[in-house]
Amino acid sequence: MCKVVHPVVPYQFETASEGEAVMETAGKVIRCKAAISRNPGEALVIEEIQVEPPKAWEVRIKILCTSLCHTDVTFWKISAGPAANFPRIFGHEAVGVVESVGEHVEEVKEGDLVLPVFQSNCGECRDCKSTKSNSCSKFIENEYHNTMPRDGTSRFRDKNGEVVHHFLFVSSFIEYTVVDVAHVVKISREIPIDRACLLSCGVSTGVGAASKVAAVEAGSTVAIFGLGAVGLAVAEGARLCQASKIIGVDLNPQKFELGKKFGLTDFINPASCGDKKISEVIKEMTDGGADYCFECVGLSSVMEDAFNSSRQIMDQGWGKTVIVGVEMHGSPISLHCYDILKGRSVCGTLFGGLSPKSDIPLLVNKYLNKELHLDGFITNEVRFQDINKAFELLHEGKSLRCIIWMDN
Amino acid sequence: MCKVVHPVVPYQFETASEGEAVMETAGKVIRCKAAISRNPGEALVIEEIQVEPPKAWEVRIKILCTSLCHTDVTFWKISAGPAANFPRIFGHEAVGVVESVGEHVEEVKEGDLVLPVFQSNCGECRDCKSTKSNSCSKFIENEYHNTMPRDGTSRFRDKNGEVVHHFLFVSSFIEYTVVDVAHVVKISREIPIDRACLLSCGVSTGVGAASKVAAVEAGSTVAIFGLGAVGLAVAEGARLCQASKIIGVDLNPQKFELGKKFGLTDFINPASCGDKKISEVIKEMTDGGADYCFECVGLSSVMEDAFNSSRQIMDQGWGKTVIVGVEMHGSPISLHCYDILKGRSVCGTLFGGLSPKSDIPLLVNKYLNKELHLDGFITNEVRFQDINKAFELLHEGKSLRCIIWMDN
Repeated sequence: MCKVVHPVVPYQFETASEGEAVMETAGKVIRCKAAISRNPGEALVIEEIQVEPPKAWEVRIKILCTSLCHTDVTFWKISAGPAANFPRIFGHEAVGVVESVGEHVEEVKEGDLVLPVFQSNCGECRDCKSTKSNSCSKFIENEYHNTMPRDGTSRFRDKNGEVVHHFLFVSSFIEYTVVDVAHVVKISREIPIDRACLLSCGVSTGVGAASKVAAVEAGSTVAIFGLGAVGLAVAEGARLCQASKIIGVDLNPQKFELGKKFGLTDFINPASCGDKKISEVIKEMTDGGADYCFECVGLSSVMEDAFNSSRQIMDQGWGKTVIVGVEMHGSPISLHCYDILKGRSVCGTLFGGLSPKSDIPLLVNKYLNKELHLDGFITNEVRFQDINKAFELLHEGKSLRCIIWMDN
Repeated sequence: MCKVVHPVVPYQFETASEGEAVMETAGKVIRCKAAISRNPGEALVIEEIQVEPPKAWEVRIKILCTSLCHTDVTFWKISAGPAANFPRIFGHEAVGVVESVGEHVEEVKEGDLVLPVFQSNCGECRDCKSTKSNSCSKFIENEYHNTMPRDGTSRFRDKNGEVVHHFLFVSSFIEYTVVDVAHVVKISREIPIDRACLLSCGVSTGVGAASKVAAVEAGSTVAIFGLGAVGLAVAEGARLCQASKIIGVDLNPQKFELGKKFGLTDFINPASCGDKKISEVIKEMTDGGADYCFECVGLSSVMEDAFNSSRQIMDQGWGKTVIVGVEMHGSPISLHCYDILKGRSVCGTLFGGLSPKSDIPLLVNKYLNKELHLDGFITNEVRFQDINKAFELLHEGKSLRCIIWMDN
């Protein structure tokens, strides 16, 4: 296990003169280091990479630190089909400083502290302008998110000049990346950068799922299936919303202690329920079912468990189930018609229903105001050269978030 | 087809002295006529029935008119299992005048115009006090709703003294019925009674599903699967909410003309779509799927069609599907996890999410203010003695709502 440093001071930005020095790279190809995934499921290889300058509407970002999310691991393992794109640079949870911007970019400038975010937020399309969701339909043709979203090409070439693919429009396992401005969120320099990194994906997803998608009310009961970083962030969101009972469900009993700091009040290990269904246990604990159930595992069977645990007494109910996990097996969720008829609901969400550009700065403020707990999510830290260690830790269930510090 | 009279004047209530005459029955068994269902699926038989006085918290109502809803027909056909209860008095959509009240009833008094409503609304339980749903958990043990909800006994005996079962806590195919005060809504005397009758179940359900459960916004697109009275009431609700496009889906093309007065702007006959899926047709008509889809048929395959027709472009979406129909086959709804992941939602609803005691009077006002259209729902009228004709008309698809006028 790696030592956790937890720097509590904000990043020391370069002075103006140093800033100018950084800008000398603007418009030029940058040769730097990347952790390239050459083959599915195999260790990443630190190699020299060529990063092209940003084109119009693009931003080149110097990554300060990044972290590993389960979605990286999921795609890293995919060995066939259109979602398998190798060589590839994974990583989509990060924080960095703008190195240079392409034509038409006015929203951020060199030296700004930014989060690259997989969720697009162009701000102009019908979806972005709607308050109904956090969808963005600007770049919908780019289904496999293995290139830049706007022109479908890569900005990365390896030392042999071969194209290296992007991932989720971010690719943060690299010293410098290029991201479309629709995927960039400027944030306050006051927040410690490793805490900011967490808001780039997982923690925002969980907090948003509870506070925005479910809109948990004070006094509500909540059940969370799967206590990884996202599930615990759901707990944190529910805690912020003053839920009265927050039940965590996980096969690892150590997660209860870990989750208490995020508001977890109760814990169920499904392996210890005997013949009882998990939904029966939760219904007993909540007088008829939890008001809000969250699935953070990504298994359709667990999604059905979550739905069945949501409030319904006999034939009356209002329980809301929020699907946060990504089911990669393509299995359907099967809901009994009669069970949903009388008021229950199920909804999906990506990025916790948050609109990145408007909602992430609010979470930053909540952290700075000491309302939002972020510190406990960082369980490990490694240097960039040891990035494969982060994969091992996550795989072994020993890590919520492992911060990967770039050397620069 | 029966002549439609459409009385446009309010019911002429008896004078005070006549009112006193009515009250002479208070506390006594009333012998009157009921249309008893003796065997599943067989014609109702008009017989003399004995109606006991209301016990504590109960109200005896003189039915003025009633109408036939598909749910009556569905249960009338059930020949086995715990839901089959014969002899029984069906009917749950009606309007009447309070004849007498039991102990503790202060909410209504003799002479009040009231709607009996299947949906309980005690106003005191945790569910009734919540704004999250229109559930009421006061009488949840009474699963088969074949008795009075509070004490589980019947107020009806036939001429041989045998118990006759209640239906949905209303039983309106009878001259006098007894209903728990939690199932009674007092309404203004200004509304014509046949229009009021519609608000006792079907029309309220549809209007509420659109305006309260979905909360359709101005400019939204709406698709409605199944254009019976409830489906057309959804259209009427969407029209009130100023939806810009209201697409009706039905196998009967005559429903388009009928639906235009309730705001239907477009129509699809699934039988005329050729090889195209209905969801593809709707996606083309709505630039990616309807914002709100309503299933008003009660078939899981149609529920899935509705879900698949809800807005989602590539992997982004916010489409909301509201399940209004009751699937009686017990078939599950199967949703592809990946299709719900990115923002779509599915929810069920009973009685259109309306809290009867607070929301029905608002609909009455909307009718009196000429905002809500009700007249077009009444397609037929029969006298009580011809009640079986109402079943035939509904079965033949010739009727939206057939008003059954009591003789008294």
